[in-house]
Amino acid sequence: MNQSDERREAVQVSVDVVLLTLVEQQLHAVLLRRQAAPFAGVWALPGGFIHTDEDADAKASAARVLRTKVGIEGAYLEQLATFSGPARDPRGWSVAIAYCALLPVQNLPPDRSDISVVPLSALPQLPFDHRAILDAALERVRSKSLYSSLPVHLCGETFTLPQLQQVYENILGEPLNKVSFRRKMDEMDWLEAVPGAMLGGGAHRPAQLYRAKPGFSQTLALTARGL
Amino acid sequence: MNQSDERREAVQVSVDVVLLTLVEQQLHAVLLRRQAAPFAGVWALPGGFIHTDEDADAKASAARVLRTKVGIEGAYLEQLATFSGPARDPRGWSVAIAYCALLPVQNLPPDRSDISVVPLSALPQLPFDHRAILDAALERVRSKSLYSSLPVHLCGETFTLPQLQQVYENILGEPLNKVSFRRKMDEMDWLEAVPGAMLGGGAHRPAQLYRAKPGFSQTLALTARGL
Repeated sequence: MNQSDERREAVQVSVDVVLLTLVEQQLHAVLLRRQAAPFAGVWALPGGFIHTDEDADAKASAARVLRTKVGIEGAYLEQLATFSGPARDPRGWSVAIAYCALLPVQNLPPDRSDISVVPLSALPQLPFDHRAILDAALERVRSKSLYSSLPVHLCGETFTLPQLQQVYENILGEPLNKVSFRRKMDEMDWLEAVPGAMLGGGAHRPAQLYRAKPGFSQTLALTARGL
Repeated sequence: MNQSDERREAVQVSVDVVLLTLVEQQLHAVLLRRQAAPFAGVWALPGGFIHTDEDADAKASAARVLRTKVGIEGAYLEQLATFSGPARDPRGWSVAIAYCALLPVQNLPPDRSDISVVPLSALPQLPFDHRAILDAALERVRSKSLYSSLPVHLCGETFTLPQLQQVYENILGEPLNKVSFRRKMDEMDWLEAVPGAMLGGGAHRPAQLYRAKPGFSQTLALTARGL
């Protein structure tokens, strides 16, 4: 901020989190039933006001919301964009700092009646501008998956290369060439084979299990040229 | 926002604008001398608090700051990221919604003692977290210039292709191959020749003048594969 501008007005500031996961190879959003007005009882993005006495920054607010309201820790979290204006919340001029979070489905808490894991094709009507926020998150995740290791945050700790490719394909909505997919993963240099760990056998040849190298749990590996 | 969370605390929200221009083929930042405490008299990014009675959203706040404090209209403006926390402003927990703006240098107001146009190599120490905001803007502008028409917002209304290529090269900090540069511009399909308008003559062959097609003044043309 700047200059002789001492109009410090009350603006309500929240964080809203688009929490995405994969269920049966389909992207799903995690919604939370609102407990208080406005829109009490309605399914919405997890969110909440900033707590200035405990949050180190807005990202910490988003992590706190996920921890206290959804019951999860350690989701990959990145800032998406900030939404603002007089009309997005009936309580008045407001600012929502939106985050995108990715989580393997097995890390979600078991059955809770106030949490809904919804395929993108079956989203209910969302309150506020939550639909616009969700759409922005999907665009970000899809475009970023083209040139980064982002999709790994939807995978469990270990996975085979065909499983990883399928996760990329589910996000991008199109099949990828196996050879060039593997070359891109090699170029980005973020995968390591888990020594001695193989998946399967049975009718198929056992497949090597991989995991992200240490250091890629909250940061992304990037490639200049897309998949 | 969400849930039974009625802790609506006072958080001060500002917009800060990294305003970039090209002077003698070098990127410069436009700084404003702060008139009020904290940091009165210090060069800083143009910025100000949100005015809830007149701003339609934070982008409108940023445009208002540029209009009223720097005296410019029509700069290309995009949201960069939001910076927040208890320590970035001595007045307390604060949120700064940062924008990046690009402007041809001839659109800046003539000499004003409270405005400084500084080459990036000679930046003074900046207050708050303005240096981190500026660095984020430079990273955004450089990476986005690799696959979009963004640099045109530093050019005047018309330009030759060699002039445009030089602007890209100045931002990217490296020479580009002329043939592949022109192919990329063709692919993005955002340039049109100005009928009958040529630059120069003299020792050189006159060069065709180009401009952005209508519709690319506030939006960007994008290419999936970078320069």
